[in-house]
Amino acid sequence: MSENPLPGARYGVHSEVGRLRKVLVCAPGLAHRRLTPTNSDDLLFDDVMWVETAQRDHAAFVAQLTARGVDVVELHDVLARTLEVPGARDWVLDRKITPNQVGLGLVDGTRAFLEGLSARQLAEYLIGGLATSDLPDEVRSGYVALARESSGAREYLMPPLPNTLYTRDTTCWLYGGLTLNPLYWPARHDETMLMKAVYLFHPDFVGSTVWWGDPEEEWEQATFEGGDIMPVGNGVVLMGMSERTSRQAITQVAAALFANGAAEHVVVAGMPKLRAAMHLDTVFTFADVDIVTLYPRIMEAVHTFSLRPSDAAPGLTVTDEGSRAFTDVVAEALGLPSLRVIETGGDVYASERQQWDSGNNAVAVEPGVVFTYDRNTQTNDLLEKAGVEVLPIVGAELGRGRGGGHCMTCPIERDAVDFR
Amino acid sequence: MSENPLPGARYGVHSEVGRLRKVLVCAPGLAHRRLTPTNSDDLLFDDVMWVETAQRDHAAFVAQLTARGVDVVELHDVLARTLEVPGARDWVLDRKITPNQVGLGLVDGTRAFLEGLSARQLAEYLIGGLATSDLPDEVRSGYVALARESSGAREYLMPPLPNTLYTRDTTCWLYGGLTLNPLYWPARHDETMLMKAVYLFHPDFVGSTVWWGDPEEEWEQATFEGGDIMPVGNGVVLMGMSERTSRQAITQVAAALFANGAAEHVVVAGMPKLRAAMHLDTVFTFADVDIVTLYPRIMEAVHTFSLRPSDAAPGLTVTDEGSRAFTDVVAEALGLPSLRVIETGGDVYASERQQWDSGNNAVAVEPGVVFTYDRNTQTNDLLEKAGVEVLPIVGAELGRGRGGGHCMTCPIERDAVDFR
Amino acid sequence: MSENPLPGARYGVHSEVGRLRKVLVCAPGLAHRRLTPTNSDDLLFDDVMWVETAQRDHAAFVAQLTARGVDVVELHDVLARTLEVPGARDWVLDRKITPNQVGLGLVDGTRAFLEGLSARQLAEYLIGGLATSDLPDEVRSGYVALARESSGAREYLMPPLPNTLYTRDTTCWLYGGLTLNPLYWPARHDETMLMKAVYLFHPDFVGSTVWWGDPEEEWEQATFEGGDIMPVGNGVVLMGMSERTSRQAITQVAAALFANGAAEHVVVAGMPKLRAAMHLDTVFTFADVDIVTLYPRIMEAVHTFSLRPSDAAPGLTVTDEGSRAFTDVVAEALGLPSLRVIETGGDVYASERQQWDSGNNAVAVEPGVVFTYDRNTQTNDLLEKAGVEVLPIVGAELGRGRGGGHCMTCPIERDAVDFR
Amino acid sequence: MSENPLPGARYGVHSEVGRLRKVLVCAPGLAHRRLTPTNSDDLLFDDVMWVETAQRDHAAFVAQLTARGVDVVELHDVLARTLEVPGARDWVLDRKITPNQVGLGLVDGTRAFLEGLSARQLAEYLIGGLATSDLPDEVRSGYVALARESSGAREYLMPPLPNTLYTRDTTCWLYGGLTLNPLYWPARHDETMLMKAVYLFHPDFVGSTVWWGDPEEEWEQATFEGGDIMPVGNGVVLMGMSERTSRQAITQVAAALFANGAAEHVVVAGMPKLRAAMHLDTVFTFADVDIVTLYPRIMEAVHTFSLRPSDAAPGLTVTDEGSRAFTDVVAEALGLPSLRVIETGGDVYASERQQWDSGNNAVAVEPGVVFTYDRNTQTNDLLEKAGVEVLPIVGAELGRGRGGGHCMTCPIERDAVDFR
Repeated sequence: MSENPLPGARYGVHSEVGRLRKVLVCAPGLAHRRLTPTNSDDLLFDDVMWVETAQRDHAAFVAQLTARGVDVVELHDVLARTLEVPGARDWVLDRKITPNQVGLGLVDGTRAFLEGLSARQLAEYLIGGLATSDLPDEVRSGYVALARESSGAREYLMPPLPNTLYTRDTTCWLYGGLTLNPLYWPARHDETMLMKAVYLFHPDFVGSTVWWGDPEEEWEQATFEGGDIMPVGNGVVLMGMSERTSRQAITQVAAALFANGAAEHVVVAGMPKLRAAMHLDTVFTFADVDIVTLYPRIMEAVHTFSLRPSDAAPGLTVTDEGSRAFTDVVAEALGLPSLRVIETGGDVYASERQQWDSGNNAVAVEPGVVFTYDRNTQTNDLLEKAGVEVLPIVGAELGRGRGGGHCMTCPIERDAVDFR
Repeated sequence: MSENPLPGARYGVHSEVGRLRKVLVCAPGLAHRRLTPTNSDDLLFDDVMWVETAQRDHAAFVAQLTARGVDVVELHDVLARTLEVPGARDWVLDRKITPNQVGLGLVDGTRAFLEGLSARQLAEYLIGGLATSDLPDEVRSGYVALARESSGAREYLMPPLPNTLYTRDTTCWLYGGLTLNPLYWPARHDETMLMKAVYLFHPDFVGSTVWWGDPEEEWEQATFEGGDIMPVGNGVVLMGMSERTSRQAITQVAAALFANGAAEHVVVAGMPKLRAAMHLDTVFTFADVDIVTLYPRIMEAVHTFSLRPSDAAPGLTVTDEGSRAFTDVVAEALGLPSLRVIETGGDVYASERQQWDSGNNAVAVEPGVVFTYDRNTQTNDLLEKAGVEVLPIVGAELGRGRGGGHCMTCPIERDAVDFR
Repeated sequence: MSENPLPGARYGVHSEVGRLRKVLVCAPGLAHRRLTPTNSDDLLFDDVMWVETAQRDHAAFVAQLTARGVDVVELHDVLARTLEVPGARDWVLDRKITPNQVGLGLVDGTRAFLEGLSARQLAEYLIGGLATSDLPDEVRSGYVALARESSGAREYLMPPLPNTLYTRDTTCWLYGGLTLNPLYWPARHDETMLMKAVYLFHPDFVGSTVWWGDPEEEWEQATFEGGDIMPVGNGVVLMGMSERTSRQAITQVAAALFANGAAEHVVVAGMPKLRAAMHLDTVFTFADVDIVTLYPRIMEAVHTFSLRPSDAAPGLTVTDEGSRAFTDVVAEALGLPSLRVIETGGDVYASERQQWDSGNNAVAVEPGVVFTYDRNTQTNDLLEKAGVEVLPIVGAELGRGRGGGHCMTCPIERDAVDFR
Repeated sequence: MSENPLPGARYGVHSEVGRLRKVLVCAPGLAHRRLTPTNSDDLLFDDVMWVETAQRDHAAFVAQLTARGVDVVELHDVLARTLEVPGARDWVLDRKITPNQVGLGLVDGTRAFLEGLSARQLAEYLIGGLATSDLPDEVRSGYVALARESSGAREYLMPPLPNTLYTRDTTCWLYGGLTLNPLYWPARHDETMLMKAVYLFHPDFVGSTVWWGDPEEEWEQATFEGGDIMPVGNGVVLMGMSERTSRQAITQVAAALFANGAAEHVVVAGMPKLRAAMHLDTVFTFADVDIVTLYPRIMEAVHTFSLRPSDAAPGLTVTDEGSRAFTDVVAEALGLPSLRVIETGGDVYASERQQWDSGNNAVAVEPGVVFTYDRNTQTNDLLEKAGVEVLPIVGAELGRGRGGGHCMTCPIERDAVDFR
């Protein structure tokens, strides 16, 4: 690979806690200004936020990451740069500005309007959504009245994508390659389409190896979200099997990793059915090489499976780990005698509150140094007592979508760690 | 068309109340035995039903239709016959038994099991869904344990399709051709795939003209459900614009009809946003050439638009009908001085109850002769007082999915009427 | 007791399955005609029903009970008879027709209207609710307009009481006396007020011993519903501790029973928190002296306690039965070696459906003879295979409120059984 | 009144915007630490908050009020001072530590524990709730295990009262006297009980005139919440008729005010039924003598009535104001030519977001000087452009219960204003 001129080929994520070198984030913006109590369900967001303050807090998070030596790239910037590459703008608009999306009678005017924008402005609308009221009068028509009477996402010419804030979900770097994830909710599918454009056209990302996934195909039951996926090192990947990440996808990704020699063991955390909507990283993340923070009331109910390579089709075997604790299976897979476990802090009330406020959703910049929300003071204290350095993210606004630091970061380059 | 040897080419639906000659229904069955209070939300069904009794009541409905001279075809039968046609079984299984649907490691065993079934048994599972417990032991594997831990539709190898009961939604005959509808909920998409198989392979249906729609394509925001669509005659089609039927689809279908000379006027009923989930036929149906039954509290809030052909791209114009009553626009379009309106019967409580119990969801077998549920006695009385003959469907079980006689029937051949 | 002239003093319920001699039921009626999809949540009813058919099915149930020798009394009849007793009508109207209930400005006119009715008509409105549209024009006033703008129960002058259908909940005969239950939901409180009138004035009921409860007092957290309570015999009472029946009430009733020597052991079934809304009798009832039908997925999660008399205040002791199965504790309390358990029938789907359709909600007329809904065919088959005679209730309409035969019956006289 | 030695007799609220002299607030505390995603519905709170930060922001709000010359009294302080008055502690504990509330077997131990606390500590538990884990080991017993298995509020010995934060609702000063409000939800009833103790025992509050209400009586449908009530001056009181404030209460309070000569006109805002849960002050408040801020999409649907004194029973007349705008009726009642209306700011998305974030929930300290949440920047800008001075409350945490500055303040002394 030494002669490979393509920058993407150099990227890779080799652990959950090794030195973080490059990460993708997405600042709050127009998409969150579109959120209201009425449409937030359709747009899959838990609450409305004060966007200006959320932007300030997100910028402070980015500044801290940068100060720690991380190369932080932001999705609006990345997308704007992508759109400057010849062919990229057409590629995106050919897929977004169609009768199926925008509606017959509005395609030409909408496209003409978007063609006239700067790359930066276009990136803003692609992420933030395009309302009929954004169109200049001259490209409006009788069709706009139809859109005005439509409800939910259909009232938009391009629906807002507020969940881009959670860059973790859309793509996963797993060791030397990535997945372009088919997300569970149709309202999020276009997030992956934008990321495909980035990996096709952006000069920094071209050349990356894609293990699996393509937003231009249909994946049906095979949905996969980064919040459930952790390339922990030692050839191991943890995958939460949840409402959003299915066995249909998990087994395909495992087979692809095994076929490429990229991993040797996938540990599947079967999430309890009653809390099916929950990603693994909302209840379990790493804070150091052998330290995890977890919410015991959910993690105790996880049913664990191991997937390993096989010469026979379909290229993998399934082992039901039965009653073994998930943490024990993970420790063994990493060659560790055991994991040190930091449970969500406080009494029964406080720990439930902190799990809800993303208290277990830590993201490491290096072993033993993590970001978490400031508000989960008791869990943060326990982490610090265990020797973990805790860097705070102001969570009053950012936390309202029910995602924390781990959700808001998509590592692109991260070092391996040494488990011995 | 006289020399056309293909039977499908002879079909067509030319009104809402002309003599019904051929209709597609689907009996309750295995899919409804799979419904539970826990999974019914995922499977988009309102309540569980007593399947044996629902089958009896459905059979009685079919018998009455037959006694009235209608050629009733039933989906399990139609699909079984389709699967006997060479190539059809492979066509279906190639699309259903894939890693994305069934899951890696289960494809070969599942396909082998299904290959061994009779066409009738296979049709049963295609509609009723395939549970892991249906697989014989010899084709099971470690992968089944993963499926057992999955929740919702993912616990199935093929998810049940209980909404097939509502054949109205999946395909629409509009004058001399049909649409293969992209349904709103992903959990219903495979219903249209089965119907495509029928129109591709079943000897009676081959040769039909398809105006629009293909379940093998992606339609995104362009969703279309037959409960919103009524080819009322005189070149007019009514289309409810609802949560489930979008402007993106309505305008495309209108353009296709206009381009083929199949219709001259589409009247769009913009359904109130607060009741977005409602199909037009849950609050408005025809009982005779100039008689409609409607639920006034919803219909009063409808915002009406007219679409008409245009030589200019995209082939249609939009007229906002402003404050005109929907019924007035429809009457004018049909060349009638006015419509006779039968409102949902009873006091404020009774009328709301009857709308809920599909009281306005009548389906005509000929002008002035309709089927409705027996339970909506007050609305039925009003229809009879207006001279309409009302034939009852026993609704105690069938009505639990919130669809009535109109929803449960997909007319394939229906005569035109004379509006004078 | 032989010289006691008061009939109520002769009543008593001494088991769950001994010969049933007298029972209170309540026919569907006006209250259910008031139910709509919009107000059913406020009125605590799960679905709307076809009232005429529900009445027919309820009458058939009553006829079967009568044919089995049970003296069936119906609440509308009982209340009408009560209102004929001098003083009773005033007692009721003084408590119902108040500014707090009816609204200032409407008290006099409403009372005058109700005073003019027959006892039968008044009973109908007391149970069925009084809408402003029921008032004759001459007693209407400007205040009626205010009521018209009110929502939920406030739009009524007397709110409907549709849950009277479930006479089981409101009063409990426990051996030789009864409880007048403070129900959980405020919308049901007036049901107990009507029952107090019955026990105060109705000639057949006067003289009954009341262990506990008075609808004219405030009970706060001490709520108690008959669906959770079973006087199984041998001095034992089973009590489900649920959302609706609280420890605050259970301990008070136990203390009252112990202080009166009416019982010696209360077995508390701590219902799982996740299904808090469920009464014990929705998942566990008796079908014979030693046969129970139960829904294992809930009953396995019950945490059992025993309350027994104590000389020390407050008159009882609590024993945590730890991991012992509820059925084992019950069997021991009854002096039986074990209970024969009939689980909800059918596969995983069918058993969940049947629990939902009140499949475990059997009511016995004598040992080994029970009523259940017809629709739960698989559970009914299992009961019959165990030697239980199963008498069917037509459940298509009656079952829509999510209560079965046990819920719809309030035993007033039932024999003891011999546990050998 | 000059010789009256009782301080409460001097209090009174004579307008919505006159100089505010004395106000009751309640700081966040223990009650909010008890809130979790699981119990927040039962405790009627919308979200969990970071309590320490909410306390800081609340203290800053209090400091600003104080700096403006307002005498701010805080409920924990007021209650602690109350409990020091001989007899007060017993009065409260006699009503709170009962078998109905605490549960049999736990009364003596709980009371002994509470008797041993300081007045301050006791006030903390009265507002914050008492968990079984708060009891010292020596007063625990087998009964605690029963409580542990209980769900919702029953797991507490005294349930938390987190809605005390909204002191506006519990009592209303209306000109020279107050109401002790029967709140809609049973879970809030004890808030009024605590306020009754304050008005019975606290030396500063003794002597106040109570127009209506007593938490020791049953009010049934007559519920009344301060968020709906505004004594705007000129003998006028505005009352929102909502889910929480009923016609049964409104008419009684109006009659009491008229009988005492305390008011001459009550303007009733019949809130739209679809948004029944909403208090009037969430969509309409005063910012100056003739300036209101309102959310037009709700206020346009208000149906207005006028209540005025009458010599005939029941002491008032009702006038249906028909299609007149609420603001026009209010302006006329105040003798103003019209009200200046500041609508919620921003586009369709922003205004809905700001209404949700209490953007229209302003509270004035003097004419033209109001507090609102900082986050509603666009509405705040519009107020400032209209000449109103806007003082910010930091709303990131405090706003999570969906109440703003108006909800969090209960004026006790406020001057009249001059409408000309």
